[in-house]
Amino acid sequence: MDKTLSTLTRKELRSNWDELSAEEQVSNFKKLSAVEAGRFFAELEARDQAKIILNLPMKERHVWFRALDPDDAADVVQETTSDKDRQALLDMLDAPTRHEVKALLTYAEDVAGGLMSPRYIAVRPTFSVDEAISYIRRRAREHVQVETIYYIYVLDNEQRLVGVASMRDLFRSSPDQKVQDMMRTQLLTVGEQLDQEEMSNLFAKHGLMALPVVDDQGRMKGVVTVDDIVDVVKEEATEDIQKMGGTEALDAPYLQSTIQEMVRKRAGWLTILFLGEMLTASALQYYQNELAKAVILALFLPLIISAGGNAGSQASTLVIRAMALGEVKLRDWWRIVEREIVIGLALGLILALVGFLRVVVWEAAFKTYGEYYMLIALTVGGSVVGVVLWGTLVGSLLPLILRRCGMDPASASAPFVATLADVTGLIIYFTVASNILHGTLL
Amino acid sequence: MDKTLSTLTRKELRSNWDELSAEEQVSNFKKLSAVEAGRFFAELEARDQAKIILNLPMKERHVWFRALDPDDAADVVQETTSDKDRQALLDMLDAPTRHEVKALLTYAEDVAGGLMSPRYIAVRPTFSVDEAISYIRRRAREHVQVETIYYIYVLDNEQRLVGVASMRDLFRSSPDQKVQDMMRTQLLTVGEQLDQEEMSNLFAKHGLMALPVVDDQGRMKGVVTVDDIVDVVKEEATEDIQKMGGTEALDAPYLQSTIQEMVRKRAGWLTILFLGEMLTASALQYYQNELAKAVILALFLPLIISAGGNAGSQASTLVIRAMALGEVKLRDWWRIVEREIVIGLALGLILALVGFLRVVVWEAAFKTYGEYYMLIALTVGGSVVGVVLWGTLVGSLLPLILRRCGMDPASASAPFVATLADVTGLIIYFTVASNILHGTLL
Repeated sequence: MDKTLSTLTRKELRSNWDELSAEEQVSNFKKLSAVEAGRFFAELEARDQAKIILNLPMKERHVWFRALDPDDAADVVQETTSDKDRQALLDMLDAPTRHEVKALLTYAEDVAGGLMSPRYIAVRPTFSVDEAISYIRRRAREHVQVETIYYIYVLDNEQRLVGVASMRDLFRSSPDQKVQDMMRTQLLTVGEQLDQEEMSNLFAKHGLMALPVVDDQGRMKGVVTVDDIVDVVKEEATEDIQKMGGTEALDAPYLQSTIQEMVRKRAGWLTILFLGEMLTASALQYYQNELAKAVILALFLPLIISAGGNAGSQASTLVIRAMALGEVKLRDWWRIVEREIVIGLALGLILALVGFLRVVVWEAAFKTYGEYYMLIALTVGGSVVGVVLWGTLVGSLLPLILRRCGMDPASASAPFVATLADVTGLIIYFTVASNILHGTLL
Repeated sequence: MDKTLSTLTRKELRSNWDELSAEEQVSNFKKLSAVEAGRFFAELEARDQAKIILNLPMKERHVWFRALDPDDAADVVQETTSDKDRQALLDMLDAPTRHEVKALLTYAEDVAGGLMSPRYIAVRPTFSVDEAISYIRRRAREHVQVETIYYIYVLDNEQRLVGVASMRDLFRSSPDQKVQDMMRTQLLTVGEQLDQEEMSNLFAKHGLMALPVVDDQGRMKGVVTVDDIVDVVKEEATEDIQKMGGTEALDAPYLQSTIQEMVRKRAGWLTILFLGEMLTASALQYYQNELAKAVILALFLPLIISAGGNAGSQASTLVIRAMALGEVKLRDWWRIVEREIVIGLALGLILALVGFLRVVVWEAAFKTYGEYYMLIALTVGGSVVGVVLWGTLVGSLLPLILRRCGMDPASASAPFVATLADVTGLIIYFTVASNILHGTLL
């Protein structure tokens, strides 16, 4: 692991990059040859690029920052926290690039405008196919790179997007045909403010390589390419998964997050859930007399309330993911309720049967539960049906309710739903118990 | 929503596609004009394409199935369950395509070989740049499409991959240069059996548009393009999320899954968890005397064991995701343990303080817990530290242990970890309680 030679290849550097501290990363980076360093740098995430740039002396920052495409430069500026550093970075750029980067900085990082590159190949509708191809060749040779040379965007005099042609389309057309006669005019475009998750669903659904971004007048603003979307999809899934596990989304990979950050991101929800779960202590206080009369009720308490939590976690997970993929919309809420009532009932009955048999079999084998074992078995079975049905309903509706209130459905985490189900499950359990056991154990 | 006109545009059809039954989908699909139908079909997922093809009369299947690229055709064959239908589909293809499709069918769907297209542009190293560009133009015009025209793969006489050049590279080079003098030779390739998740990590890390697939002799087998990877990333995340929520991965979108499938996929784990949770009933049975003496212990039971479950869910979620992204490897297990011990202890102390204060404050306000309230507060606080630390450790190690045993780490779902934490948490709670309360309440 320890590499103390004075030169490194980028492959060697990459092999343990994630395990190095920021200082070690920069000092190792400096050991690369110029060519290797250039390639290595281009492959880094924006966060790592920013880290290197900010850890280099001012004079050396220059080269690397200017090597970035405007969308990546904007990401680096966005990752930089101090205002002074941000300004210093912007000052390094030449005027036109600074203009582009500043324009990109007006968008949030997670919308189409924040992901797009303002550098694309635009042609007029009256270009011939041959002219278009020559123009692409010229642009490909330029120092300032366009994001993709594989699509040309046809704009009218007001910069409105009127058509698109892929290089494949161009190659298939006769060289003297006009672009306006062969371009595609049934266009899929996105607005500048479209959320990156919805955009990634479009890419996945239509198998696209690039999507043009237009403003509300239909003027072309930039292009988002699919290679950036792979990152987006992974990031969004990671954020959702972390929230669904009951933590805040982390800002860095697991092993790179500091212990302090980990505790901070995890303690918040954990404390909220703990406070919520305290309601079970209050509810049980209320049922203290029943518990004192029939301690046996306490034996099945974790079993019954966890069944509701588990059923609820399943339902919320499925609904959250379906919403993220755009498979389920808010207006589908009633269809979800209908389905989940049937499913919750079926699952509840299956578990109820298992729970019922547990009590009956244990009684037959070990004579554990006394003369009223059949009533206890019925209490367990009956509560499980209610608790599972209720947990399933709560779990499936909570993500929809959160979305309706403008919050992230993924916050309906498994632990959150389980906590809700615990508190209500307990009430269901004791209600069923006092009805069934009234006059015997209670 | 109801569209009874005799003609439809594909936009109209797409708007409610997911809500239609298979029969409605096919009957609406037939209402599209030929051009619209062709475009609509190309945009569908392989599953939907298969559904349409199999619901069409044999004579009409022909056209649509032959329109597919070999990798998509292989997907359709793979989605088809009956052997007779599979053979019928294969028979529709012309001999060379059938050969390609059959070769693809030898790979699992979720490895590089199963995702690649065998159609790519291959040139000899001695081609000139100009010849290469002309060759690309010719291939782009052919009826049988190559997967990507934006990369050419340079193969030697034994079909071994020796270099790659992008169209951009070609455009930048002088036309009479030899391809072997301008191609990239530092190649990133993947083996045929590489798992799609690891492949997607490569795409994300390096921002690639395409990756060549080679066999163990370095011979080129096909190419995987990034547009297919977006689907893969989404699918993999969905599978992981569903497993992490404690269900089996669904085969279809939420609203398209039948109630029966839903119950089947959810009942399995739910029953296993229920059986596991039954251990809490047995453990509590063992502590029945303590419970009878101090019913007050039952009041905090759900609170304490759920704290361990929640902490464990957080830890397992973070580790599972980090493993899926390749941020954490099996060999990092000790670093994870070190971190999680510190984090678990910190989280446990925070919650313990909250729990301790809850008892003390309630006692001051409502005189609820009697003369030994301070001992009870200590019991609650002490157990919470132990339970949270233990839950955190179990949650973080379980995914690693599952991977070590060749199982999917994502099976360490929040409900699974919570169940484990419940059973052990209970033992921790009663052990702490009997030590602290011995001679007073117990």
